[in-house]
This record gives sequence, C-alpha cells and structure tokens, in this order.
Amino acid sequence: MVPYCTIPAVMESVVKDECSLGVVPIENSIEGPVGITLDSLAHKYDLKIFKEIIIPINQNLIVNPGCKLEDIKEVYSHAQALAQCRDFVNKHNFQQHYAVSTARAAKDIIGDNSKAAIGNRKIVELYGLEILKSNIQDMDNNETRFVVLSKKCHKRTGRDKTSIIFSIYEDKPGGLYRILGIFEKNNINLTKIESRPSKKGLGKYLFFVDFNGHMDDEIIQNILKEIEENTYYLKVLGSYPEF
Amino acid sequence: MVPYCTIPAVMESVVKDECSLGVVPIENSIEGPVGITLDSLAHKYDLKIFKEIIIPINQNLIVNPGCKLEDIKEVYSHAQALAQCRDFVNKHNFQQHYAVSTARAAKDIIGDNSKAAIGNRKIVELYGLEILKSNIQDMDNNETRFVVLSKKCHKRTGRDKTSIIFSIYEDKPGGLYRILGIFEKNNINLTKIESRPSKKGLGKYLFFVDFNGHMDDEIIQNILKEIEENTYYLKVLGSYPEF
Repeated sequence: MVPYCTIPAVMESVVKDECSLGVVPIENSIEGPVGITLDSLAHKYDLKIFKEIIIPINQNLIVNPGCKLEDIKEVYSHAQALAQCRDFVNKHNFQQHYAVSTARAAKDIIGDNSKAAIGNRKIVELYGLEILKSNIQDMDNNETRFVVLSKKCHKRTGRDKTSIIFSIYEDKPGGLYRILGIFEKNNINLTKIESRPSKKGLGKYLFFVDFNGHMDDEIIQNILKEIEENTYYLKVLGSYPEF
Repeated sequence: MVPYCTIPAVMESVVKDECSLGVVPIENSIEGPVGITLDSLAHKYDLKIFKEIIIPINQNLIVNPGCKLEDIKEVYSHAQALAQCRDFVNKHNFQQHYAVSTARAAKDIIGDNSKAAIGNRKIVELYGLEILKSNIQDMDNNETRFVVLSKKCHKRTGRDKTSIIFSIYEDKPGGLYRILGIFEKNNINLTKIESRPSKKGLGKYLFFVDFNGHMDDEIIQNILKEIEENTYYLKVLGSYPEF
C-alpha cells in the first residue's frame, strides 16, 4: 500500500503504473459527492472502476489526555468531517478551523486543552491523544463509498453494476427524461443518479449514473448504444461487482 | 445589511424576523451545489426563495505588498475558492491551507512573503494587500447563483421560475423517470436538476428541481398536484422572477 496526498495523485499513480490499483472516496451518505473524484474521472483521467467498497464512518471528538468537554473552545478537522458533525459542533458553540486532513487536525491540537480535533480512531493512536466522545456525526447512517480504480475492467460476475457519465444536448428539452426512458423500457434499475456542473456555465450538467448489469451483457450493450446516439458526451467508467 | 457568520445563521435571522430577507449562495458553476444551503432548506428552515442573483466570480492571488511569485510557498483560502483554482495551485506546487473564509485567509498571510491568499478584490483593500495575479480560477465561466430568502412568496411576473424538493419511493423503479414525464407532457422546461443524499443511507436521494413557471399558474398547480401524488415528500421552495 502506498499513500498519496491528494485524490488526483492516487489516480495519476495508476495511470503511470506506479500502482496497479487506486482507492478513492466517491460519495458520502451525508455530505454527498466527492467533487474532485467525479471531476477527475470525467475530465482528466481515463481509468476504470474495478470495484466498489462501502465503509461506515464514525467521527469522534479527539482531545489531549485528561482534557474535559468544558475546556474546549475550538475544533479542528477536514471540511468533510466538520460538515458531518455540524449539529454537534453548533450545539457546543465550538469555533471551527479547517485542516487539509483529519490527521493534520489531530497534529494541530497536541498540547493545547482548549482545542479538539474530529476524526477516526486511528488518529488517536498515532499522536497519543484520546477520544472524549465517539459517534458525534449528525446521523447514524454515515457511510462512504470508495471506488477501486484500474486500467482494466472487471470481468462479468452475474451481479454487477455499470457506471457512466453523460451530458445531454442543451437545446433539446426533456433530454434527461429520454435517457432515463431507455433504462425504463429495458427494465434496468438505476442505483445512483448524480448531477454535477459541466463547468461550462450554470444550468449545464454532467450526469453520473450507476445501474445494474455488466457492459458485456447484450442488453447493456444495446442501452449504451442508444444512450450514445442521444447524448453529445458519454464515458463508460466500467462494470464491476456490486458490493 | 447585516452580516452573519454562517449560512444557517442567515436563514435563522429571517425566521426570527431579525432580517426581512437573507442572501445565501446555492450553487457555483465550477464547484457545484452548496451543500449546507440545500440541506438547510430541505431539512431545517421553512423559507421561500424570493429572488435569484447570479454573480460572476473572479479569484485572485493576493500577497503582501512587493511580494514576488517565486517567494510564495503556501496558499491560504476557503475550500471552495481553493477548489476553483486547483490547476493554478497545483501548477505552482503551493502547499494548501484551508481557512473558514477568504477574508480570514487574507488576514492569516499578513507580513509573511512566503504566504499568499486566494480571494476577491475587496479583501485586498481591507487588509492593505495587493493582487499578484488576477483571474486564477480554472475556468472562465465561474458564476455563483445566490438566492434571496423570505417568509413570503414573490408575486407572478410572467417570467418566473419555481423551485421544488422531492424524494421518490425507493421500492418503485423508474420513479424519477415518471416525475420528469409530468414536466415533459406539460411541455415545461427544467432549468436545474440536482440530486443530494437524503441522509438516510447511500443511494437514497432528494431531488432539487427548478423549472419555468409560477405556482399561481394553473398548469404549474396541476403539475405540483400530480408530483405530490407520486412522491412521498414534496416541498415547494417558492416562485420568483428569473434572473
């Protein structure tokens, strides 16, 4: 395993054959899509989704040993983690500071009892800190979906998903409706639909859609062909076993 | 005009009649939706969209007077602004630091020539700094859409938009397709569609949809009635003049 500092750096390592697989977060059930992952897959790197992994996320209030809740005035964490704990942070009226990572946040609070960090258990061991409160995220069902990226596609298993990105002609109203109709008439279930600015101005979107089936299936091949005829951009991110 | 520190605080000020109108960002053409605005409108505050405002955004590299590009090692800004300037920041290999606001970032760099901030022109005057490079955002078409929130709705002008939030029954495939079909058969154009996690687990979404027309129009009233019958949650955020 090789750690990289940023999501694009992980993708680049696979493109350059430094790593055979790259693991990046793609969406969180509370905070939504991970913009940089979707944008990099859409605009920059030609990689396939080889696998998906779903991991439950627990956020903890991390403090210096012996520190009490009433000592804390400020809280440090990555923007995503702070966003996942909005209710908790607001309830305690902590002043918020953004850090580039939760690990960096933990490092920033060492030795100062007026400061706490938010992050996972691993960080605690890393820096000799302790957990004052666990599971402080707003909702219990906090999960992050990661994708494993590769240069090659996964073979058909019979229980697969396919991910695509497309954009529709702007001058034709009902474009998205027509694309969804292609899935509907073939009785193929969408498991995800996400819109994302195409970066060509407000109101112009890319759509990220996941659906059941493998691109080696005849029915999926026909669907992809029909979508291609009705969009001006289509990118197939790959087919992979459902988690 | 009264400034508030956070987006929910702006909304709260309108709810509590401290202000008659509140202005908050709702989407950016490069970075996408402003999660906290959508979530607060969906789950927390019962406010109407009274107006929309679209403002072009220019990001600048802000430095201490006399500082040169080769002096800079670190760059400070809000996560949204840093994300809008990803290519520029990566090209120069600056170490990134997140700040709670672009104004705070500017304050953090005062007196240190190895540090720069990213933000708009106003900040420069505020702290006696200067712009080293202007328009450093990744794309030229960087615009942010703001909404003006109120307790009451705007009257019909004849050139209006309506915003709604809905979620569909999970056990019925093709739910979104059926809702879009209601607009299609009435020949009403969608100007925006955005999916957002419903916070009830991965794969469960709220949809934020904007379309042409005012909720006082008979055709829009019929559409809303039909949508209500086919969704388990529908919230009308209001009708307002198109920008």
